[in-house]
Amino acid sequence: MSENKVLPRALNDLIDAFSGLPGVGAKTAERYALATLKSSKHRAENLSQALANLHSRVKKCPITFALIDSSLSVSPLYSDPDRNKKQIAIVEDPFDLVAIEATNIYKGTYHVLGGVISPIDGVGPDELHIPELISRIQHDAAEEIILATNASVEGESTALYIQKSLEDAGVSVKITRLARGLPIGVDLEYADQITLSHALNGRREL
Amino acid sequence: MSENKVLPRALNDLIDAFSGLPGVGAKTAERYALATLKSSKHRAENLSQALANLHSRVKKCPITFALIDSSLSVSPLYSDPDRNKKQIAIVEDPFDLVAIEATNIYKGTYHVLGGVISPIDGVGPDELHIPELISRIQHDAAEEIILATNASVEGESTALYIQKSLEDAGVSVKITRLARGLPIGVDLEYADQITLSHALNGRREL
Repeated sequence: MSENKVLPRALNDLIDAFSGLPGVGAKTAERYALATLKSSKHRAENLSQALANLHSRVKKCPITFALIDSSLSVSPLYSDPDRNKKQIAIVEDPFDLVAIEATNIYKGTYHVLGGVISPIDGVGPDELHIPELISRIQHDAAEEIILATNASVEGESTALYIQKSLEDAGVSVKITRLARGLPIGVDLEYADQITLSHALNGRREL
Repeated sequence: MSENKVLPRALNDLIDAFSGLPGVGAKTAERYALATLKSSKHRAENLSQALANLHSRVKKCPITFALIDSSLSVSPLYSDPDRNKKQIAIVEDPFDLVAIEATNIYKGTYHVLGGVISPIDGVGPDELHIPELISRIQHDAAEEIILATNASVEGESTALYIQKSLEDAGVSVKITRLARGLPIGVDLEYADQITLSHALNGRREL
């Protein structure tokens, strides 16, 4: 007996489509499909409409590569006159930018790499908009580059690669990194050795 | 700064919509939204279309309460002349039916409860189509009812409730339960006590 005879086609199609999401297997996709069917029609249509035309409603800012509304020409985080264009934070993905904005203390601009150098995932340095970064630093006469990539192997090597690219291009700019150290609320005895080493090396005089 | 200024509206809408799925929090919804945006336009439209009109394309079979194509009048698992209408397996949800069908050894019909009695979730016995089950048993002159609810507290009490309802209605029919015992591939020493008790009580002579 074919699967199609057991479940209605519409439900099978939905399970297949949900299975395409990252980390979603057959069982989770089934659970999502059944929950969607059990919830209101309005909710399913809501998700459907949010997906329809997603790609045409969102584009990348040609300067910062942040995701922006298609109706905009550049990111509001760049065009805003209150933002300091001489300070550029380099982040891996668009949500890292949301996290930094949530602190409410950063008033510079962003450069979204859209990934990190990762040979396993087939991401090379050419896809990270580094030439655009260099010309932007020169155009805006940027004074500080904040390397805000993640503390992963790929994040660290991408940071090193960017540092080297800037040197090779003869760009003279202050390069900083986010501080590594003990997060708030974590006991010293539970901190991992690498974090603790960073906290020791980066200790500050009071 | 509002969230809307940081991320494009279409992306925020999608994150909100994904957050409505069971067990999906803000971070997972963000991951799904970003993955959808990174994947092909075709894929997003695929999921969008699978969701659109889902509710109008799927309905419940009026006899078995299984999910069926709207174009059908009753479930093919009931209308199929090869299925034994005198045997009815009672399952909690539509996917339990898929699991039983996958064994390829059951040739009876189904009755989908659509849930189990669970005061916490506000599900009472009235929502489980038990009167319809009783009239169906009489109409088809069913000979065996297989209680195939899950081995949870709710599943067990629902099974008991159905058993009592049939007695109260004066329906004389053989009632069976799925066997409880050691699953294949599990070592005796790792089996939990309840499973092992069931396996001992249900032991069979060779």
